Amino acid sequence: MSFSVTILGSSSALPTSKRFLTAHLVNHDERFFLIDCGEGTQFQLRRFRQKTARINHIFISHLHGDHVYGLFGLISSLSMLGRKNVLNIYAHPKLENILKDHFKYFDTDLTFPIKFHQINSKTSKILYEDDKLEIHTFPLRHRIPCSGFIFKEKTKLFNIKKEMIEFYDLGIKDIIGIKNGSDYITSEGKIIPNVHLTIPPIAPKTYVYITDSKTMDSVIPLINNADLLYHEATFLDSDSKLAKLTYHSTALQAAKIAETARVKKLVLGHFSSRYKHEEKFLEEAKLVFQNTVLAEDGMRIEI
Amino acid sequence: MSFSVTILGSSSALPTSKRFLTAHLVNHDERFFLIDCGEGTQFQLRRFRQKTARINHIFISHLHGDHVYGLFGLISSLSMLGRKNVLNIYAHPKLENILKDHFKYFDTDLTFPIKFHQINSKTSKILYEDDKLEIHTFPLRHRIPCSGFIFKEKTKLFNIKKEMIEFYDLGIKDIIGIKNGSDYITSEGKIIPNVHLTIPPIAPKTYVYITDSKTMDSVIPLINNADLLYHEATFLDSDSKLAKLTYHSTALQAAKIAETARVKKLVLGHFSSRYKHEEKFLEEAKLVFQNTVLAEDGMRIEI
Repeated sequence: MSFSVTILGSSSALPTSKRFLTAHLVNHDERFFLIDCGEGTQFQLRRFRQKTARINHIFISHLHGDHVYGLFGLISSLSMLGRKNVLNIYAHPKLENILKDHFKYFDTDLTFPIKFHQINSKTSKILYEDDKLEIHTFPLRHRIPCSGFIFKEKTKLFNIKKEMIEFYDLGIKDIIGIKNGSDYITSEGKIIPNVHLTIPPIAPKTYVYITDSKTMDSVIPLINNADLLYHEATFLDSDSKLAKLTYHSTALQAAKIAETARVKKLVLGHFSSRYKHEEKFLEEAKLVFQNTVLAEDGMRIEI
Repeated sequence: MSFSVTILGSSSALPTSKRFLTAHLVNHDERFFLIDCGEGTQFQLRRFRQKTARINHIFISHLHGDHVYGLFGLISSLSMLGRKNVLNIYAHPKLENILKDHFKYFDTDLTFPIKFHQINSKTSKILYEDDKLEIHTFPLRHRIPCSGFIFKEKTKLFNIKKEMIEFYDLGIKDIIGIKNGSDYITSEGKIIPNVHLTIPPIAPKTYVYITDSKTMDSVIPLINNADLLYHEATFLDSDSKLAKLTYHSTALQAAKIAETARVKKLVLGHFSSRYKHEEKFLEEAKLVFQNTVLAEDGMRIEI
């Protein structure tokens, strides 16, 4: 089952010649979730051959332009392509009015409905749930209300051994029970322990998305042991005063969060265009947390 | 004196992997004028190494997203870079409210003032004038109010021959008169005809921008003998019914306008993404008007 994230844009507020504005595409089992939608996101989706039409859920962390200005063009293009399916948008309540006014101003009749889900950026909550995945939101600390996201796979079912199905001539009801962890009781009343019948499932995986925010220890219990943490690193630690002032993080701060929360891998992004040498973000983070990479536009990370 | 246009985006409503959305940058004597501002215009300005900060005038043909959605990000970025100079925007009156509401919604305090100039899309008018250039607007016929633009150099001054300045020991007043076409009268009362004193100036040049519009003969007297005509060609003539229905033009129609108006060069753009083989636009136009080229993103045309 696929679980990956593709970085569509990795610059902070100002785009550079190499980096577009923030957007991530999460593929979980061929369902596609977009996180943030900076200007040009629709170009990047096309450039990196992603399935734009199959995005059904868009999560917006906060209402700064570099995280949301691409939404107007993306929605327009989906409509021009004749989309019919509901598009779910999860964001601060203000965006609902912005979108309504926008499409009224531009006389746009969309070919598909938008279902708007308000995020209360002051509390943690499950925003989305199906049989395989939960998507949680949690508060961040930026200059304006801002939310982080956790993509958390549900505990997977046990994989039943094929030969056991034949050997015990198992019916569908038995199989469902065993996949959920039950033992099997034969018609003679003999208990066959689940462990003999199954292979344990792959551990469920977790992807955490944190941008834009000043560093905050309160996220640590929420993201403990995550498989992949994307954390903004707008500044280097030599500019930590500036980070504090603008409610952003440094590479060192992000790495400390990763280390304390014992995540498995850290990807840094949202680099300020003020820095010429981005490898310094990596050097700084690796002092504290070795398994760090720098986001690049088009980079796909398997979770 | 430089007079050129750089094509920043040349697709119609949907961007393609090769073509961004509509925007042109006109450089007249190192003053920079932007026409239209589709999503991603700020990236293209950077990509093609143009002087974004030196744009002081933006002209918007009409309020369809593919011609204007890049304005929000461009203005935000200029503000983040600390711009102080007035930015003049010429567009349909509705855009003034859209911008006001937009920056209110996004709590954006710009570092510079915007001066908004309303375009009445029903009449021809001079929008901008200085000592070297006039910019005219004129009505087009699209599904919503839409305006074309003419960049018209003013008649240039005669170039006075250096040796004549020395020979007749000319003062500043004399020089100004001669540059404006006067003859010179010596202290002995002898008349020296202007033609002996000067080299004729280069003929003033004209650039015309027409998109989006159905074909309309009424533009012909306005654009007669233009040096460069940019004309939209959303469709091929085999789809002329569709062009009529959607208030767009075909390559053949654009070429007929160019031919009848005796312009010197035609550049076609705004191609619908439905066509795989864009050379067909060129073949079709050249049947009628030989000096035609297809717009490409990044193309710079000297006028």
